[in-house]
Amino acid sequence: MKKIKIDAYALLERIRKSKPVVHHLTNWVTIYDCANIVKVLGASPVMAHAKEEVAEMAQIASSLVLNIGTLTPEFVEAMKIAAMSANKKGIPVILDACGAGATQLRDKKCFELLDETKINLIKGNISEIARISGEAVKTKGVDAGHVAKDMATIARDLARRRKCTVVATGKEDIVTDGKLTYIIKNGHPLMTQVVGTGCMATSAIGTFCAVEPDLAYAAACGLSCFEIAAEQAAKTAGGPGTFKEKLYDFIFNLDQKTIDKMQRIEC
Amino acid sequence: MKKIKIDAYALLERIRKSKPVVHHLTNWVTIYDCANIVKVLGASPVMAHAKEEVAEMAQIASSLVLNIGTLTPEFVEAMKIAAMSANKKGIPVILDACGAGATQLRDKKCFELLDETKINLIKGNISEIARISGEAVKTKGVDAGHVAKDMATIARDLARRRKCTVVATGKEDIVTDGKLTYIIKNGHPLMTQVVGTGCMATSAIGTFCAVEPDLAYAAACGLSCFEIAAEQAAKTAGGPGTFKEKLYDFIFNLDQKTIDKMQRIEC
Amino acid sequence: MKKIKIDAYALLERIRKSKPVVHHLTNWVTIYDCANIVKVLGASPVMAHAKEEVAEMAQIASSLVLNIGTLTPEFVEAMKIAAMSANKKGIPVILDACGAGATQLRDKKCFELLDETKINLIKGNISEIARISGEAVKTKGVDAGHVAKDMATIARDLARRRKCTVVATGKEDIVTDGKLTYIIKNGHPLMTQVVGTGCMATSAIGTFCAVEPDLAYAAACGLSCFEIAAEQAAKTAGGPGTFKEKLYDFIFNLDQKTIDKMQRIEC
Repeated sequence: MKKIKIDAYALLERIRKSKPVVHHLTNWVTIYDCANIVKVLGASPVMAHAKEEVAEMAQIASSLVLNIGTLTPEFVEAMKIAAMSANKKGIPVILDACGAGATQLRDKKCFELLDETKINLIKGNISEIARISGEAVKTKGVDAGHVAKDMATIARDLARRRKCTVVATGKEDIVTDGKLTYIIKNGHPLMTQVVGTGCMATSAIGTFCAVEPDLAYAAACGLSCFEIAAEQAAKTAGGPGTFKEKLYDFIFNLDQKTIDKMQRIEC
Repeated sequence: MKKIKIDAYALLERIRKSKPVVHHLTNWVTIYDCANIVKVLGASPVMAHAKEEVAEMAQIASSLVLNIGTLTPEFVEAMKIAAMSANKKGIPVILDACGAGATQLRDKKCFELLDETKINLIKGNISEIARISGEAVKTKGVDAGHVAKDMATIARDLARRRKCTVVATGKEDIVTDGKLTYIIKNGHPLMTQVVGTGCMATSAIGTFCAVEPDLAYAAACGLSCFEIAAEQAAKTAGGPGTFKEKLYDFIFNLDQKTIDKMQRIEC
Repeated sequence: MKKIKIDAYALLERIRKSKPVVHHLTNWVTIYDCANIVKVLGASPVMAHAKEEVAEMAQIASSLVLNIGTLTPEFVEAMKIAAMSANKKGIPVILDACGAGATQLRDKKCFELLDETKINLIKGNISEIARISGEAVKTKGVDAGHVAKDMATIARDLARRRKCTVVATGKEDIVTDGKLTYIIKNGHPLMTQVVGTGCMATSAIGTFCAVEPDLAYAAACGLSCFEIAAEQAAKTAGGPGTFKEKLYDFIFNLDQKTIDKMQRIEC
């Protein structure tokens, strides 16, 4: 693997200066968290979902985030309209395959989105990415190291086949565009004990992708920044409730020194 | 009344070990809180609501929670499909009769759910339970002691008639399956000063019912644990905002010693 | 300008004693925040949105808040039904023109609401109010002082033309009924760094309008109280996350002494 210089703070500064609009069609559980992570990063969230306005709204955005966590067929139709508008404008479309594999509807709609529009980045946890890749991966009972290795291959193959960037989250996160693969080793176990961190990670990635055309690089930087703040928040939190609020504080206050000191990305 | 041994911590441990899936069709105001209370208890929330997938999702769940707080006729149709799937699988269906009595639509849809599917546990505040029982109870101006007494009778009659467990919340909470009645005396006034605690209580009950077939016993344990954490959170909270976040912390950190010391359930 | 006595605490006490029902049809991003600000002020939020029940629900309310942040055509139909019911009962209808100007759908639906129902108070930020007034105002690059001056005129004209109260928020907030104009100088920059404060301000205004027929006076008091609590919360917050929770605490704990000392309203 070649060593490349990663300057996540430079992207964060770009976000704070240009305040890009990040358009979401997301789920109803974490819609506030998706919007707020964009906001505290310094960008501007827009959560319009009516099929009558999503195409127009996507035109004023710098990236589009789709999240199927509480999908309905009608909602996915609006997602497709938004994605096609984003494709036309040339802004990146990020798909969180939240819950892929749980029901036939989710699988079907995921593949429709992937086949009928151009998705530039697919993000999911290990089992969701495995499902989308068509692999039957047994994730239980396999130790983290092995999963990471197997998953890197699966993610890379999926990225090549779909000509997109793939982000597979877990204890270590894999980000790959099929050529270059980043392993992000930041994060904290408390992130898995509270609702919303998975969706927030996707929205953070969407925000970084709004200011940087190298989507794998942007995603690696975004995930790392998000998880560095999580490590900081976990230090003084009394549990998942206060952790979540402090997480917003620390993301808002991220500076170059902290990022450079705490960042753990392998490439 | 006979004295029975109540070991709420044993159920909590069962939740943390088996991590049951708790499927919700709930309201849009507190959907995050409903999911997050399940999560911090150690279980796994799923909030799918599309009529095309709810039957399938209910099949991977260990309990189903319905909450009509922001109902529409279409949403109640999805609830019925989910409930019938849950009935078929034999997992408990919990109904929060949120706002029953406020409009004709709410009353109508509550009774449809009760008549067309098997609801295993009905939960509401005193006036909601009274409404569902068909009783015209005047709740204003009646002191808490008298209400508690009257309500216990009303709840017991409703439980017998509907062959289900009934939970009526108030200053003291009544849990009854028509035979055995529990009075839960935990809780704190701050719970009534912030949005979401009522819905969270229902989701906590749903989580305990996912690991224990005696639903009245499970509900009494679940409510008590939730309210013990609320008592702890209230001690250091500056108001309803920080109270809510600390509540999640204390639920997450509940241990046997705290529960045994603070639990106030009469049976 | 004439000097009038402003006693915001008197209105707050009226809210806490009469606990008015504030009915909302709002957006899915901040629906919890809209409900919770009403709750911590001491009133009773109701968030029913089904077209089948909104007319009935509005009849038990003391004010109605509409917010188009995540509108759909169907949702706006329910808003119209609710507004007409509120008009019939004679309770104030408050419209948050959230995102007006961003898409054709938003503009169209805003004007439909204004033309087909009686809106008693229109609230938006400077660019939203300018859009609704039909003025082509350039808000970027204009310094705050000049905007405030121009905006006061635009807001006043709009209020006169639409025979309603207009609230234009910014670094300083303008509240006018076309005759009397209030400038609210409370607030803190952190309010703009977290999602929800704009919607919460509208819901606070709606709550104060539920107990006071002079809507401009009520709105000035409501905004000022909300922003005083924000100033207090900002003092000890570590960032936007903890700020938001403390904001609820301070609103809940607002007392006469604090309000009288910190209030900065010019009339």
